[in-house]
Amino acid sequence: MKKHNFSAGPCILPHSVFKEASQAVLDFNNSGLSILEISHRSKDFVSVIEEARALVLELLGLKNKGYQALFLHGGASTQFLSVAYNLLEKKAAYLNTGTWSSKAIKEANLFGEIVEVASSKDKHFSYIPKNYSVDNSSDYFHCTSNNTIYGTQMKEFPSVEIPMVCDMSSDIFSRQLDFSNFDLIYAGAQKNMGPAGTTLVVVKKAILGKVSREIPSLLDYQIQIEKESMFNTPAVYAVYVSLLNLRWLHSLGGIKEIEEVNEKKAQLLYSEIDINPLFKGFAAKEDRSMMNATFNLKDNNLESVFNQMCQEANINGIHGHRSVGGYRASMYNALPLSSVEVLVEVMNELERKA
Amino acid sequence: MKKHNFSAGPCILPHSVFKEASQAVLDFNNSGLSILEISHRSKDFVSVIEEARALVLELLGLKNKGYQALFLHGGASTQFLSVAYNLLEKKAAYLNTGTWSSKAIKEANLFGEIVEVASSKDKHFSYIPKNYSVDNSSDYFHCTSNNTIYGTQMKEFPSVEIPMVCDMSSDIFSRQLDFSNFDLIYAGAQKNMGPAGTTLVVVKKAILGKVSREIPSLLDYQIQIEKESMFNTPAVYAVYVSLLNLRWLHSLGGIKEIEEVNEKKAQLLYSEIDINPLFKGFAAKEDRSMMNATFNLKDNNLESVFNQMCQEANINGIHGHRSVGGYRASMYNALPLSSVEVLVEVMNELERKA
Repeated sequence: MKKHNFSAGPCILPHSVFKEASQAVLDFNNSGLSILEISHRSKDFVSVIEEARALVLELLGLKNKGYQALFLHGGASTQFLSVAYNLLEKKAAYLNTGTWSSKAIKEANLFGEIVEVASSKDKHFSYIPKNYSVDNSSDYFHCTSNNTIYGTQMKEFPSVEIPMVCDMSSDIFSRQLDFSNFDLIYAGAQKNMGPAGTTLVVVKKAILGKVSREIPSLLDYQIQIEKESMFNTPAVYAVYVSLLNLRWLHSLGGIKEIEEVNEKKAQLLYSEIDINPLFKGFAAKEDRSMMNATFNLKDNNLESVFNQMCQEANINGIHGHRSVGGYRASMYNALPLSSVEVLVEVMNELERKA
Repeated sequence: MKKHNFSAGPCILPHSVFKEASQAVLDFNNSGLSILEISHRSKDFVSVIEEARALVLELLGLKNKGYQALFLHGGASTQFLSVAYNLLEKKAAYLNTGTWSSKAIKEANLFGEIVEVASSKDKHFSYIPKNYSVDNSSDYFHCTSNNTIYGTQMKEFPSVEIPMVCDMSSDIFSRQLDFSNFDLIYAGAQKNMGPAGTTLVVVKKAILGKVSREIPSLLDYQIQIEKESMFNTPAVYAVYVSLLNLRWLHSLGGIKEIEEVNEKKAQLLYSEIDINPLFKGFAAKEDRSMMNATFNLKDNNLESVFNQMCQEANINGIHGHRSVGGYRASMYNALPLSSVEVLVEVMNELERKA
């Protein structure tokens, strides 16, 4: 029986992607070789990474606008470090909206002065701060577009005169934005891009080369650009599966189309959370994430019944993050509306039973 | 028809590993979920990484000897940086045996004084320097056990009183060594361990915590040990396939058994290189690598015929690295003896024809 996979990441990808990805492990492109045993310098793989890099820019509307897309190692957590290494000369402005922002601030602190322009820590990161000001003498402004753990999402981004850097790990490719407002976007692959093991960096070349420190080669965006994302052996399989997933999104019609589906899914679930008297949402309504819905049972005694019902309905991965508790339903691009319908039906049934 | 895959890396893995790895992309452990869509914090995956870490120590004979095995991001190239970040306070001693050593030296140079104890650059890295001395007041000694590009391999390691760090990317798990002579071993997975995308670090805990600088979290071995190799989302699939491959090696009888096969393969090919008047080996005989045999045609006019014959025999990946030219046949653990027999037969046939 089909699982309804609400895992916060690594997360569901389209079944067609799994099928093709499975086949390539046995025989890639009818080469008689597994995708896992070919050289990363082979024509076949070079064309994979080139197509993936080009497709990223196309999907984000950033073609021919001075950006480069890179598939790097190390997860978004490595970017906390790389961003500072490459861009931080004296001070930088960070918006603190949760665990990932806080970690980004911690790592950047080793390289210069970090000004926290605002934080929602006072209310356990359940909202997105507004009306903060960013000092335009900072080297850059950094924010996190979606907060997986707390289920909050930035709906608006400030207008700044300095480079804007954004960790979009958990909502890239899920909604339309004017991506050209950003100068550097990074994202661990394991949500809407692909499996765990590679990290996307989209960077405007014009912002690079301005710090005085020496940058380790592997972390140096300019070197990675020069080497066409192959300074060292890339995570071949993770890049390949990301390409399959990007192709899937492209064939659907791109971000515009998937955003409509994502809106429907989120609307359906949040309506239930608000209408059902047994549940309450965690995040401030105006800041609710379209990707990760966080919610709690008002009566903890119902927990074991609800968990049991979810299990019976083949619902996977809705336990909340340990730092928030309760439930978290992640509704990434590949999650079908029908899975949300099943979850809502179980919530309904609980109400009837209780 | 079966390909004979001599690729220098990413490289051949056992067919049984590809089969199981392919199946897990569709359905992992009969969970109804793909290995690509499960949480890295799920019981199923935690048990994968735990088993892989334990198996590494068992295969290397390092159980209960104060070592930890970590599966990290970023390839061996990131370790060039991490080693220096974690261990280099004032100066370190490096043996320069080729491209990878040179890169390791370049990155470490950002963190302290690097003393090159010896180099074989004078003869295009075609041999391993001997009779060098290592200053025991250095913070550590660093060497590269096998040089993929040049086809040389260290047969003996110096006896030093300081921590010995070794990049074993291209020959780990291929031959018996007293691994307890090393204090830190690292290896990109994509040769004898698994597919590209994860990196093994085996570190003796006692050598850590001795530098005064602050270390970025992701590069800090102590933090990675504390977080049980899950400071951030690991490269789930690459770790899983590495486990399958380590299990395969274990079921064969471990390093001792595979070493015998590797010796046979190397002996067969090097004999042919020495006997066949059309070929000459690149590396000094006493330093020849059991993993990567580098050789040239004496008469370059035979190149297109030989290439054609190799292609017809389904031989893949024997072109030499661009910096050496000629041919390179990589004979990693999973390459069967029969593949080497096919290559030797083609070399023989060329001699008969020429």
